[in-house]
Amino acid sequence: MNEDDRITIHPEKPWEILQDILKTGNSEQLKTFLDSLTQIETALAISRLEVEEQTALFSMLDPSYAADVFEGVPEEQAADIMEELTPTQAAAIIDEMESDHQADILAEMDDEDVEAILSEMEPDDAEETRAMLSYPPDSAGGVMINEYLAYPQDMTITEVLEDLHQNRESYVDYQVQYIYCIDGSERLTGVLRIHDLLFAAKSAKLRDIMIRNPLHVLATERLEQLQDFFDEHELVGVPVTDEEERLVGVILPQAIEEAVEKRTVSQFLDFTGIVGGEEFRSMSLWNRSGRRLSWLSINIILNIIAASVIVYYQETLAGAIALAVFLPIISDMCGCSGNQAVAVSMRELTLGLVRPREVWRVLGKEISIGLVNGLALGLLLAVVAMLWKGNYFLGLVVGAALMANTIVSVSLGGILPLVLKRLKLDPALVASPVLTTVTDMCGFFFVLSFATLVLAKLG
Amino acid sequence: MNEDDRITIHPEKPWEILQDILKTGNSEQLKTFLDSLTQIETALAISRLEVEEQTALFSMLDPSYAADVFEGVPEEQAADIMEELTPTQAAAIIDEMESDHQADILAEMDDEDVEAILSEMEPDDAEETRAMLSYPPDSAGGVMINEYLAYPQDMTITEVLEDLHQNRESYVDYQVQYIYCIDGSERLTGVLRIHDLLFAAKSAKLRDIMIRNPLHVLATERLEQLQDFFDEHELVGVPVTDEEERLVGVILPQAIEEAVEKRTVSQFLDFTGIVGGEEFRSMSLWNRSGRRLSWLSINIILNIIAASVIVYYQETLAGAIALAVFLPIISDMCGCSGNQAVAVSMRELTLGLVRPREVWRVLGKEISIGLVNGLALGLLLAVVAMLWKGNYFLGLVVGAALMANTIVSVSLGGILPLVLKRLKLDPALVASPVLTTVTDMCGFFFVLSFATLVLAKLG
Repeated sequence: MNEDDRITIHPEKPWEILQDILKTGNSEQLKTFLDSLTQIETALAISRLEVEEQTALFSMLDPSYAADVFEGVPEEQAADIMEELTPTQAAAIIDEMESDHQADILAEMDDEDVEAILSEMEPDDAEETRAMLSYPPDSAGGVMINEYLAYPQDMTITEVLEDLHQNRESYVDYQVQYIYCIDGSERLTGVLRIHDLLFAAKSAKLRDIMIRNPLHVLATERLEQLQDFFDEHELVGVPVTDEEERLVGVILPQAIEEAVEKRTVSQFLDFTGIVGGEEFRSMSLWNRSGRRLSWLSINIILNIIAASVIVYYQETLAGAIALAVFLPIISDMCGCSGNQAVAVSMRELTLGLVRPREVWRVLGKEISIGLVNGLALGLLLAVVAMLWKGNYFLGLVVGAALMANTIVSVSLGGILPLVLKRLKLDPALVASPVLTTVTDMCGFFFVLSFATLVLAKLG
Repeated sequence: MNEDDRITIHPEKPWEILQDILKTGNSEQLKTFLDSLTQIETALAISRLEVEEQTALFSMLDPSYAADVFEGVPEEQAADIMEELTPTQAAAIIDEMESDHQADILAEMDDEDVEAILSEMEPDDAEETRAMLSYPPDSAGGVMINEYLAYPQDMTITEVLEDLHQNRESYVDYQVQYIYCIDGSERLTGVLRIHDLLFAAKSAKLRDIMIRNPLHVLATERLEQLQDFFDEHELVGVPVTDEEERLVGVILPQAIEEAVEKRTVSQFLDFTGIVGGEEFRSMSLWNRSGRRLSWLSINIILNIIAASVIVYYQETLAGAIALAVFLPIISDMCGCSGNQAVAVSMRELTLGLVRPREVWRVLGKEISIGLVNGLALGLLLAVVAMLWKGNYFLGLVVGAALMANTIVSVSLGGILPLVLKRLKLDPALVASPVLTTVTDMCGFFFVLSFATLVLAKLG
């Protein structure tokens, strides 16, 4: 460890200090120490504690403070810790959280544990939370918050200002850009910006100055539609209604961005074989190992199937053992070329720059790249093979095989995400294994069948 | 094409309609049609036009409308189109854009083109834009906006309200949650929330009710520090100052989220071999092919180096040709296992759940996974090999080799991102090629050296 590493403002191993404080049971000291850490340091320190230490820590904090600490902990970890607390403790903490964060954590927990916690909450709050949980996480209902300002449309400006003034403290966390106006049946009837209040007569009613029939979205609308919505309308929030036009929540554009980012990250993880949600090293060995293995075990079967092509050509291989050197090269290179095309297609699909049915367009575009890159790479490999063995035919065989297979893998990689999307399969999860298997088989076939044709010259 | 595909609300191929309208040169018709498209459909349609059609389109629109249309176009494409317009046209459009979007697009353009555009702008605006461009894109200066409300601290509430009222229309796009107060030298001295104006005496001065010494960040601070800042402080915006405490911009938390998402996506693309920024199929063949090839050509060299291990063991291979079937399997499987570990480490690094110097911790955690998964996969492959050839030694060799190499690749994959980070190299770009090369070499070595030991029994 060098000089630089030791000179840090923040403690080297905050979890060790945390462990010492937990032993003393001094909750004031605990708070003082946690206050001195950044949110990321706090999350790091907590993730390094044993399960019993984690529960001890959250039991020592008052629910509102505990809720703040939970803000920084990744959801999967927060859910795990929550499950270890008593339902009463957990309910008290959940109650202090912002509504969207509540739903995110509860969604990661076992149904039983969720029920136990809900039964400890105030019936009204429990009802509200249950309603939030009933919406899919990628719908408007799943990303909305219920901290917003809504007043009956018949209230006067004076009355509203009075309420705002009296409840300043509790509204301080609210995103108070807009005031929503509702009628007697809680139906959304209008909206106004908070600074519209500045310029209105104090005796006017909200209904006199509100913008009628405001833009709103249904709780059942999906992430894509919401993205479209915020792309179209530069708003800092949109009200959410149920089927009966009743106001049920508010969506902030940040929430959509967050949900989209989450999806990008989970795509990325799926693509690299981390399936079933994020993996953290604080999870148990068996859990982590099992999740990775679930994907690897499918992969090894596919690999064995692909390699069976080689079995079929064993005689050719025995006649020209040098070919064995090139089989893994061609397999790996075509996997890489193909995955580049997969990545570009996945990105264009996400951005809406290509539509799932435009297979021919993508195929046309990728075949030309496959041709250019296949020619370049094939030539390079052919030269290497010739120089090594001084045999033109060996160079011709491996060069031609790499070129042919680059065309196959780039074209296939380009269209596979589109085809999978139309088949309602997840490209991030399925494209890469399918691609590698097919291109391996084709690659082995090209090398070995070309070699069979000129076997006498390869010896 | 089936029934379902034809029944769409939106036009099948909006770019064809667009092409027809462009031929008529009717700009009203053009606007009406663009208004009917969502932002994503617009971006898609524009990306499908020829270069001349794109410039014709933007020349037909007034600058403010053109700026709105550009909002939805990916930055790389927007920059390409901008370069084709005359500097005068481009400057007029840029001038109508939000400041952060301006900087993003200009940063993608050639220096010459940027200079040509800046020289067409009002000197003051050009100066401001030049200043924005001088900050790196992942610094506070690079993500800040300059649409905000700042008033001299000696102004009265009445004067401020008057200005707000008079300029309502131009402030409508501003993120008016806060009002910033400055002194005579433009130094930031205070802040107040816009609704604080509601409760203040009209004759009071801003300095009487502002919060003094407000939280602020320096223009040079990096993305990580800004993320920390917004994690710590639940604010809807933070003022940015230069070294002399002068107010130069405002950062919205959304801008940080966007920048972080951009980085995640570019990590993801780097990881799959799409280097040098996003690739779109609307780019030229040579550009796309060259960018992919730059990465592939390094990869093929690394592959050839790895495969040279096989050359060294050609005799062993000739003695037991069945081994050639297992070489690509072991190479591919260990690449997959290793990349899983790379992905988990990259994720934990991004989230701050592991520190670059905690190599031993990660190594300990990954070795156990390598052991468990290596055992499982090795056993499976051993059984397959035995059943195929009825030779226990063949099973033993390939099973043991896969197990040993899984341990190597999982451990290496886990620590590589940490090590690369400490060496100031980009894990997303470097980890995967290095990993694959090393694990290929080890894998070939394990299979072939184990086989050499029991060669007599493999025949």
